[in-house]
Amino acid sequence: MITLGVDPGLRLTGYACIRVAGPRCEILEAGVIRLRRRDEEDPKAAPSVSQRLAELDREFRALLERLTPESVAVEGLFAHREHPATGMIMGHARGVLLLAVAQRGLPLVELKPAAVKKFLTGSGRADKGQMQRAVQHHFGLAEAPTPADVADAIAIALCASERSRLGLPAPTASGARKRRRTLPADVLAR
Amino acid sequence: MITLGVDPGLRLTGYACIRVAGPRCEILEAGVIRLRRRDEEDPKAAPSVSQRLAELDREFRALLERLTPESVAVEGLFAHREHPATGMIMGHARGVLLLAVAQRGLPLVELKPAAVKKFLTGSGRADKGQMQRAVQHHFGLAEAPTPADVADAIAIALCASERSRLGLPAPTASGARKRRRTLPADVLAR
Repeated sequence: MITLGVDPGLRLTGYACIRVAGPRCEILEAGVIRLRRRDEEDPKAAPSVSQRLAELDREFRALLERLTPESVAVEGLFAHREHPATGMIMGHARGVLLLAVAQRGLPLVELKPAAVKKFLTGSGRADKGQMQRAVQHHFGLAEAPTPADVADAIAIALCASERSRLGLPAPTASGARKRRRTLPADVLAR
Repeated sequence: MITLGVDPGLRLTGYACIRVAGPRCEILEAGVIRLRRRDEEDPKAAPSVSQRLAELDREFRALLERLTPESVAVEGLFAHREHPATGMIMGHARGVLLLAVAQRGLPLVELKPAAVKKFLTGSGRADKGQMQRAVQHHFGLAEAPTPADVADAIAIALCASERSRLGLPAPTASGARKRRRTLPADVLAR
């Protein structure tokens, strides 16, 4: 089972591809899609949002083509109460990624940010540094993954993979929020 | 010059196609893209966000194909401070629309919501009803356009068309915010 975890953004989108085979769980590839902040033809002009979205779309579809995941996991929608503009911008990137996932017919797993944090660290309020160290520890990596977006993507992919291994139903849709189930507390508090 | 104005949303996306030829300005077509709220195969399940985005993408691309606008106008990004989740959901829809516009190579015009309102009504704080009546009055329509999303889309297309007719540079990119120019006050306060 190959799962692609994604942490969407308009500057940096973290991704991580994880394969689970029996008891083994390995990171096949992890990294970031980093969008241009300068226009090549006019170095003083920043690319427009729509240009960035087109670039993100190209890069993400190439990733799906190359890594051939069987499912894609993202964090569920959550409100950026303190930074509503950040939430909207992130919504643009997330919309483009979700469209590509739907058009490829791949199952989408949406996980609550707090559930992913709790799964990795035991605390639903872990900060970025704690998440990076937890991911490093879990996979026995020599260094913590950077930037934090990569660690987040690995954590999302891992959490979704473990749910799948446990035979838990995938929480598939923001639109089906009421039917969403979460991991039992004893599984999460590992 | 044919301009398509769009008011994006995940339930309703208002659109209006306006043609300006010399002194004449006419609405070629206006309406809404209304997304399914129920899954056809399972009437109890709501379509997921990604399914809705895929449907919006299909419908919007069909609209671009059929109406062949020369430019597309949307309201610029603004923060939904009171309803951050609404802003994020709208961001998803907006992201998918902007992607389609970029991939068709069409110029994108972004207008500040307050500028559109001021252009139509004289007040940057006009409510939905005032906007509907202003659009009705401007085009001499027998009734005010409903739902309000249609009136908003007509207002956006009209404002963008008038800017273009006045030879004002198109404010093209959220990413180029500092270079954005607005209509002179005497033009806006008509």
